[in-house]
Amino acid sequence: MIPAEEQLATVAPKRQRSGRGARREQRSHGPQGLGRPYILRNIPTYDILSEENLVRIEQTADRILAEIGIEFRDDPVALDHWKRAGADVEGQLVKFEPGLLKEVLKTAPSKFTQHARNPERSVVIGGKSVVFSPAYGSPFVMDLDRGRRYGTIEDFRNFIKLAQASPWLHHSGGTICEPVDVPVNKRHLDMVYSHIRYSDRPFMGSVTAENRAEESIEMARLVFGEDFVEQNCVILGNVNVNSPLVWDATMTTALRAYARANQAAVIVPFILGGAMGPVTNAGAIAQSLAETMAGCALTQLERPGAPVIFGNFLSSMSLRSGSPTFGTPEPAIGSMVIGQLARRLGLPLRCSGSFTTSKLPDAQAMNESTMSMLAAVHCGANFILHSAGFLDGLLSMSYEKFVMDADFCGALHTYLDGVTIDDNQLALDAFREVGPGSHFFGCAHTMANYETAFWDSGVADNEPFEKWEAAGSTDTAFRANRKWKQMLADYEAPPLDEGIDEALLDYMARKKAGSEDAWY
Amino acid sequence: MIPAEEQLATVAPKRQRSGRGARREQRSHGPQGLGRPYILRNIPTYDILSEENLVRIEQTADRILAEIGIEFRDDPVALDHWKRAGADVEGQLVKFEPGLLKEVLKTAPSKFTQHARNPERSVVIGGKSVVFSPAYGSPFVMDLDRGRRYGTIEDFRNFIKLAQASPWLHHSGGTICEPVDVPVNKRHLDMVYSHIRYSDRPFMGSVTAENRAEESIEMARLVFGEDFVEQNCVILGNVNVNSPLVWDATMTTALRAYARANQAAVIVPFILGGAMGPVTNAGAIAQSLAETMAGCALTQLERPGAPVIFGNFLSSMSLRSGSPTFGTPEPAIGSMVIGQLARRLGLPLRCSGSFTTSKLPDAQAMNESTMSMLAAVHCGANFILHSAGFLDGLLSMSYEKFVMDADFCGALHTYLDGVTIDDNQLALDAFREVGPGSHFFGCAHTMANYETAFWDSGVADNEPFEKWEAAGSTDTAFRANRKWKQMLADYEAPPLDEGIDEALLDYMARKKAGSEDAWY
Repeated sequence: MIPAEEQLATVAPKRQRSGRGARREQRSHGPQGLGRPYILRNIPTYDILSEENLVRIEQTADRILAEIGIEFRDDPVALDHWKRAGADVEGQLVKFEPGLLKEVLKTAPSKFTQHARNPERSVVIGGKSVVFSPAYGSPFVMDLDRGRRYGTIEDFRNFIKLAQASPWLHHSGGTICEPVDVPVNKRHLDMVYSHIRYSDRPFMGSVTAENRAEESIEMARLVFGEDFVEQNCVILGNVNVNSPLVWDATMTTALRAYARANQAAVIVPFILGGAMGPVTNAGAIAQSLAETMAGCALTQLERPGAPVIFGNFLSSMSLRSGSPTFGTPEPAIGSMVIGQLARRLGLPLRCSGSFTTSKLPDAQAMNESTMSMLAAVHCGANFILHSAGFLDGLLSMSYEKFVMDADFCGALHTYLDGVTIDDNQLALDAFREVGPGSHFFGCAHTMANYETAFWDSGVADNEPFEKWEAAGSTDTAFRANRKWKQMLADYEAPPLDEGIDEALLDYMARKKAGSEDAWY
Repeated sequence: MIPAEEQLATVAPKRQRSGRGARREQRSHGPQGLGRPYILRNIPTYDILSEENLVRIEQTADRILAEIGIEFRDDPVALDHWKRAGADVEGQLVKFEPGLLKEVLKTAPSKFTQHARNPERSVVIGGKSVVFSPAYGSPFVMDLDRGRRYGTIEDFRNFIKLAQASPWLHHSGGTICEPVDVPVNKRHLDMVYSHIRYSDRPFMGSVTAENRAEESIEMARLVFGEDFVEQNCVILGNVNVNSPLVWDATMTTALRAYARANQAAVIVPFILGGAMGPVTNAGAIAQSLAETMAGCALTQLERPGAPVIFGNFLSSMSLRSGSPTFGTPEPAIGSMVIGQLARRLGLPLRCSGSFTTSKLPDAQAMNESTMSMLAAVHCGANFILHSAGFLDGLLSMSYEKFVMDADFCGALHTYLDGVTIDDNQLALDAFREVGPGSHFFGCAHTMANYETAFWDSGVADNEPFEKWEAAGSTDTAFRANRKWKQMLADYEAPPLDEGIDEALLDYMARKKAGSEDAWY
């Protein structure tokens, strides 16, 4: 029943825990704790909309595409692709007959493996797989000691190390924070190098210019070899639509660079309802579908069969202040519908995880994050970007929130295993042994099962009030602060072949020598 | 399509908001803000288990009931009921042939109305209804100013006032906190009186002794009239199984008192896996099913057709410390299965909401609460006890957490409305108006829809960092602290008929005169 490429995950231990459990796993899996390489969801997706209503959304997307169209700005190659595919191109405006994009998308794989330099960390993206990846793209970082400040390459490396040290994150991510102390036109080199050097998990490359995308992929070739990269996905690029209904050349040239190299672009409309899309959820979803289909289809025109991920980033806004809001109910429930639509297209799905507008790792932060993260796993997302660290409406990467979110990713491993039904789990013998009015502490069934019985958080405090008070009455943020420091102190870099390291450093030196620093 | 008794909810405004939106609603709905009297869930339940696996759980429950049995201690009437129903009674141990309880349960209604003294606040329990009720039963209360302390009748009244002042809670609850400054054997009188005096919503009575249950119901008769109470549900009683597999006389006499009076008992096994049940989820669920079915069936033997609610309270424990844990993944995913089982029996469902073991209204508190609360609404629970205020593993009622949880209940109103699909929501005209590359601020569709477009939290801070910092860098707990104080300051008691008030006070005086105070 399980496709060969997913067996990777099924042979990994079924249950992982933090605390003592995780430490046990760490010993048996190498110096850095790691659970399964990714999750195979063992519960169904949460499908909330009827076939009839899904069709109405698809028809609206079709009409947006056919009657209003999408502008592809300043990318003549993209326009040529569309002309050859039979779209109606007038200047930069492209209109699509219903069915055209769906036809083009038939060559896109429903599932693919993104290889890690450590083969045990490779992930499947598609089907029932769930891959947790850190937050992406914030200019600032925060911690309880130093408050909010611009991110640096040191922060960037720290977050890679924290992700690598977490048993619950499967992916190293991409632009975890902007390293603003490195020139903008060189930054991608340092970021990609850091992912390779400090992590052995899959990662993402740059998309901020075509040459940066190409250079990111070139660095991956130095690690995996040219032939391997030609045949296999080893790097992702996350490209955003300029919503509403505009694809600009920066993004289309980057997505084409990834597709051309047989690497996976993640196609993501970023729609704040009321700003880049309508204030109504159904309309924002239809728009998202139209924009994503166009971007995904463009990858197939560049290279039929290239892996591509159907992404989305619905959000809402405060209509009192005009501020964006994250982790609110409309995007959460909208994600379920996006999931249904992506599955109808047969494409792997990316959603966003730990969203919040809170400026602190506090109650609001985890209320909003938890709602958003649960929506992402319920809707069937295969690749969940922003799984850890997101704070301040994507403007800040928080060290403490990173630890809290990663811990919740651990809880979700247990949650997504669902409820197993077999004789041992049904425990009839335990009832026979214990009988009415007794207790199950120490009974044979408990002794046989307790080690893997319950999720054991590494951040939550479950002690009685008096013990908690005696231990200093700490809040979660304080405990998370201690934890990330300990994780960094304990971090050990995964081994990297010296020849590869030298080749990467040499490549970077040549690329850095080739141009002036640019800070914009 | 909508049953007559549910139309109550459908005529109420579709969308409510806190902040300006809620204030607008408050003006149009009376002095205390109130949204709909309850929610009609507009998304499907989240069904995670196959028919085959559900049957295996039911078969396990059947075997527990038939082969191991349940003890009914010190209640000869209950044992007589079981004998007459054809169960196998040996001493106090009762065994049930498969199918017996299901047959008895056929007289239980799948849905009923619990009437409030203000008819606009009556709630339907069953079908697609969702009713949010405050947390229940903690000996302590907490707030940021005074820390943790024993609850008093003043705290008890304060929480009733806060629930009444919230637009997002539908029910006044029961033993919101223990008022330890009132003698144990008189406490129920003051609690029931406080619910009636300070709230006009439905409420719960005492279950800690048969006479306290009867006196709670008698006070309800003084409000609603004897004939009305004989025909209609006006009060709930929440009774716990003494798990594993024991029903004691305190609980069975209380549940029979409610059923005898045609009032609804809520039947709740409290199973901490590894202590009162097996450490495996499937076994705990089978046990819960067996215990709940027996309790629900006993109400039908006492009075066929009496309303009754299928309750559950799954929890886990820390196997390092032996402490109970709440808001963890196992009970959350287990709730989905409980929901499926309750629907197969055709009984209304009670689940628990805002669970946490945190001792502060912090990130852990809202992470655990949000997971637990979403599980409750996804599993199809009709009556969600512990929707607001739960902290410290049910030992403390928190003023700040109450406000945060109630706010999240508001978000869930929007969430449970799902995604509406109609021409306005699909917004094709808005795309025609705005076109590629523009924005939707101020377009006709936005102007026509923005007032009800997005959930607007009354506790979250969505402002940009700089504005938040200039306003004092507050965390959620601080804002919630300000909010509950403001809510209490603004509270206005709903009008109560003077004759009823006098009758209640007279009844209490007579009952209090009739016995010595007892403090245990």
